[in-house]
Amino acid sequence: MADLRQRTNREQGDEAAKNQPRQNVPKPPISEDEDEDMLGVGEVADTSSLPQASDKTTGALDSALKDLSPRWRNWVVRGIFSWVMILGFGFMIYLGPLALVVVIFAIQIKCFHEIITIGYVVYKSFDLPWFRSLSWYFLLVSNYFFYGESLIDYFGVLLHRAEFMRPFVTFHRFISFSLYIAGFVAFVCSLVKKHYLKQFTLFGWTHVTLLIVVTQSHLIMQNIFEGLVWLLVPVSMIICNDIMAYMFGFFFGKTPLIKLSPKKTWEGFIGGAVSTVFFGIALSYVLVQFDSMVCPISYDEVKDSMSMECERHPVFIVSEFGIPATLQTFLSFFGFPQTTIKIYPFLLHSISLSLFASVIGPFGGFFASGFKRAFKIKDFGDTIPGHGGIMDRFDCQFLMATFVHVYYTSFIRAPNPQKIIQNVLLLTSEEQVHVFHMLRDKLLSRGLLQLGNVTMPS
Amino acid sequence: MADLRQRTNREQGDEAAKNQPRQNVPKPPISEDEDEDMLGVGEVADTSSLPQASDKTTGALDSALKDLSPRWRNWVVRGIFSWVMILGFGFMIYLGPLALVVVIFAIQIKCFHEIITIGYVVYKSFDLPWFRSLSWYFLLVSNYFFYGESLIDYFGVLLHRAEFMRPFVTFHRFISFSLYIAGFVAFVCSLVKKHYLKQFTLFGWTHVTLLIVVTQSHLIMQNIFEGLVWLLVPVSMIICNDIMAYMFGFFFGKTPLIKLSPKKTWEGFIGGAVSTVFFGIALSYVLVQFDSMVCPISYDEVKDSMSMECERHPVFIVSEFGIPATLQTFLSFFGFPQTTIKIYPFLLHSISLSLFASVIGPFGGFFASGFKRAFKIKDFGDTIPGHGGIMDRFDCQFLMATFVHVYYTSFIRAPNPQKIIQNVLLLTSEEQVHVFHMLRDKLLSRGLLQLGNVTMPS
Repeated sequence: MADLRQRTNREQGDEAAKNQPRQNVPKPPISEDEDEDMLGVGEVADTSSLPQASDKTTGALDSALKDLSPRWRNWVVRGIFSWVMILGFGFMIYLGPLALVVVIFAIQIKCFHEIITIGYVVYKSFDLPWFRSLSWYFLLVSNYFFYGESLIDYFGVLLHRAEFMRPFVTFHRFISFSLYIAGFVAFVCSLVKKHYLKQFTLFGWTHVTLLIVVTQSHLIMQNIFEGLVWLLVPVSMIICNDIMAYMFGFFFGKTPLIKLSPKKTWEGFIGGAVSTVFFGIALSYVLVQFDSMVCPISYDEVKDSMSMECERHPVFIVSEFGIPATLQTFLSFFGFPQTTIKIYPFLLHSISLSLFASVIGPFGGFFASGFKRAFKIKDFGDTIPGHGGIMDRFDCQFLMATFVHVYYTSFIRAPNPQKIIQNVLLLTSEEQVHVFHMLRDKLLSRGLLQLGNVTMPS
Repeated sequence: MADLRQRTNREQGDEAAKNQPRQNVPKPPISEDEDEDMLGVGEVADTSSLPQASDKTTGALDSALKDLSPRWRNWVVRGIFSWVMILGFGFMIYLGPLALVVVIFAIQIKCFHEIITIGYVVYKSFDLPWFRSLSWYFLLVSNYFFYGESLIDYFGVLLHRAEFMRPFVTFHRFISFSLYIAGFVAFVCSLVKKHYLKQFTLFGWTHVTLLIVVTQSHLIMQNIFEGLVWLLVPVSMIICNDIMAYMFGFFFGKTPLIKLSPKKTWEGFIGGAVSTVFFGIALSYVLVQFDSMVCPISYDEVKDSMSMECERHPVFIVSEFGIPATLQTFLSFFGFPQTTIKIYPFLLHSISLSLFASVIGPFGGFFASGFKRAFKIKDFGDTIPGHGGIMDRFDCQFLMATFVHVYYTSFIRAPNPQKIIQNVLLLTSEEQVHVFHMLRDKLLSRGLLQLGNVTMPS
């Protein structure tokens, strides 16, 4: 069966011109650029060999859907696989943080694969020695580095216990750097006079991809370590905003928003934002009820196991807030004479997250769609039937995760006394006692301790 | 006066072919590539408008040298400016670490400028809206981020004292991220259909440049903060290796080393390495005598000022080492019957640094020269008469600085009790006391403290 979305752009354009009246043809999003010299850098290779979104699924589903028109077929396949993804994600949450870390890792690998493949095809690098192996090698090394840093940061004490792990902890940066330098030297040695420009371009391509995919996916993992809520709320917000912006745009959309994405409208943008704020508050309210959602994952020395219990961070404990005067007048008009309100402070933070998800988040998508147009492709891959590549679904998630991470470190994370103690315990016995004495003297001189209460037995 | 090096390659080649017997013409290092389609990505713009190394200096010097042949003229100018740089660097060391930080910053800006200018010319981006401003904006933001991180890390307590600085310390990452996102949104908004590919290429170009120049130059600054010796020894090693490899190659060079740099020989490579090891040991021996060289720069709370005094790190204190048995036999043969040797451990570390400087360091140079060939330029700029651009002199220094930083954090840096105490003092009074009690209990339970010695007045 002929599948419109699977063909190359040129075919699509020609056929459309021949067979149908122009105004009825859904304009392929890239055809408008065809006549222009948008390259400047030279002719980009034919990207038609890149895998593009298809609605091909399993044999059984294919035959069940064979009588539908391509339009409806796409609608059904896309819908089915949206639910498959949401349910799969739910199942992973049920399995716990470790399963989620594995999923994030798999997604990261796949995103890297999709972007590298584009570079590989665009710059016709089929005959470049070592390019693919080197790219994957750099992916491996950067993951080794970032995973290591996170593990040491969160579970340093635990790792120090296992004798054979110690050199890997102590010399982690040196090992990572040596591995990277090996790749760097291999790259320099692989340089071939004929291909200098291509090779440097792809070297840059690989590194920018690492910067976008690897660093950000590790921020996602650190968010998971700080408590599942820091993953689930933002991820759901982006999904909610995508869907609601589409819905509002579909029903009320009139005013175009940005040239880059002609289908986006102000109505969708605003409707999506408002919906996301309300959705975010509701979801946050539900999730903060569970300790397993709000507690960081940490190593419990007493129980000698991973723990997801904790003394709740203040943002997850109900507090009383004064209501601003103007809002009070408004509320009393409707028969609510409160002057204060008791809520989880996290619900207020969720509003900041929602606003980022719906105002700045879409720029991640615009960026990705500009990128795809630059290389005349419609999707990053054909991994998810009906949706395109993994990267098509995660373009905004990466940006959002970085925001959450920065927001968390700036506004939520308190200096962690537990972590300070752990750092002390990594010192030698002598130094531990030395630190204790230094601290005692400091606190005595600041009047925070009297000699009396130091002598009390613990 | 006609200056050979200032002309474009084409002119140079034509003139050479007309006026001189071929074998006497010093082959311009890029002419060999001219006939090949080394591009693949398409035609690179004419790079002849880029500033290239020249021997132009001041009017006075120009007229004094006007009777020399271009070859000798270059020799003299290059020599003079080598000395100018070495003396200038010496003067900066005399002025102290702050002056050095300013110099490193200036060098970083200039390197960024040189690389960005190449991108600007190569991709004919004269008509791209905002490109230059955005690149400089990203440079500004990334510097704000990295400087801030270093300052907070090293002088957090001091910064916390100034009331107006506190929000900048507490929300540093959030402010940096917001600034970056503003640039990111501006980039997306500046996308123009005609130029997508160029714009994304230059976006990547800017980010790879930031990755190479900004991150590494901040590692240099952190090295300075750890003690001047961590800057001076590696920088001098690279300079020594450059000079000695050239000398050995000049006098004994026969066996070509690598295709990328046809002038490099194995003889120069090995001679350079051996010289650098000895030079490194000698220089290290001299520098470790001075406290101002080996002490980290820190804030002294008692004196309320910056301090370059310290209790020396063990690697800067003479220790006794056993000599390996085989070496003992060898030494006793020459009448040195020692079984141990008393030296600064840093001298042994300096051997590792020398080996990196002379074995891996040159690959930084090969990388840079491959890059220059890819874009058919001979130098990164014309900043230093007779030498080319700043980047031409610093290509290996960046790689070396990163190595030193990694080496220092992996093998030298001990967990710093002083820093742990500082972290405690950043907590609230209540938490400080809480940490104290937790620590006391931990140390009591480990038997490192007895209740008796806790009560002793300090």
